[in-house]
Amino acid sequence: MDYTEKTISSEEIFRGRIMYVHRDTVRLPDGSAAEREIVEHPGGVAVIPVDENGDVWCVRQYRYAYATDMLEVPAGKLEPDEDPLECAVRELSEETGLRAENYTFLGKLYPSPGYCRETLYLYLATDLTRGEAHLDEGEFLHVERIPLCELFAMVMDDGLPDAKTAMAVLKAKLLLDERTEKQ
Amino acid sequence: MDYTEKTISSEEIFRGRIMYVHRDTVRLPDGSAAEREIVEHPGGVAVIPVDENGDVWCVRQYRYAYATDMLEVPAGKLEPDEDPLECAVRELSEETGLRAENYTFLGKLYPSPGYCRETLYLYLATDLTRGEAHLDEGEFLHVERIPLCELFAMVMDDGLPDAKTAMAVLKAKLLLDERTEKQ
Repeated sequence: MDYTEKTISSEEIFRGRIMYVHRDTVRLPDGSAAEREIVEHPGGVAVIPVDENGDVWCVRQYRYAYATDMLEVPAGKLEPDEDPLECAVRELSEETGLRAENYTFLGKLYPSPGYCRETLYLYLATDLTRGEAHLDEGEFLHVERIPLCELFAMVMDDGLPDAKTAMAVLKAKLLLDERTEKQ
Repeated sequence: MDYTEKTISSEEIFRGRIMYVHRDTVRLPDGSAAEREIVEHPGGVAVIPVDENGDVWCVRQYRYAYATDMLEVPAGKLEPDEDPLECAVRELSEETGLRAENYTFLGKLYPSPGYCRETLYLYLATDLTRGEAHLDEGEFLHVERIPLCELFAMVMDDGLPDAKTAMAVLKAKLLLDERTEKQ
């Protein structure tokens, strides 16, 4: 069966700095009409940098939407036409000063497909060398180094709710454990 | 250091059916001002039902934001003041007809904390009995039963990008494997 919803009309609601919101009228499979409220976002990357001691370089920053600070892996928005891997290299360097010899793609993430169009690209960064962080203007964050196994336990114990961070931690842990077993 | 961003003013952009969008001016830690574009959503639940054969009852539905159909675990929005577990029981029954003897809370998920305020509550549902699905009006979806280990491989291989589904699959697999080992 074909579940495609065909666009009848699209109304612009808000063209903001980081999002485009529109409300569309669509034709449902049974022929009836329905409304869809959609947020479009340029997408971004998240990078989990794991050093030679098994520590993850995390960032703690204030998240206004939740009125609290949050522990996350380094991440950032894609510039127009930017390659996700280039964006990962840039954001990792900006937020932590780290450069990585090796990047492993951990997959895409659709944060909330019911109403958001946003794609996040996740990477594992290893073989790290240290340099100077250089944050964007208006960006305030604090770098914290936490063992990957401790972050893994936090995710399993509902202590790390940020989707990209939780997903990167679980995938990195499973992948690195598998690599160790193969050696 | 205190990274709190204090609200100076808040402007309503859009009060839709499923989201409230506002643009706020905030005071940053260094005293300068910045804008924050925020989407507020009522939040929801996602339930991963695993039957006695180790199969997960998934739903495939069209996601207009991505213009494609997507494989997901049963999920839905919270009604005002609804308890997340009650919502999980309701959505599982509506979308699949299943009732579960046991629910295990798998943690919260913040899909995109940079600009969204939405909280998802994840549950594992086991000891299932079958009944009749009864979809909401305008809801079209197809139930598919897929082995949990197969879904796990799909997540690790970038084949299941929906955040709530990927997170529920990884956590359910890890938890059920642990339970089996303890027996």
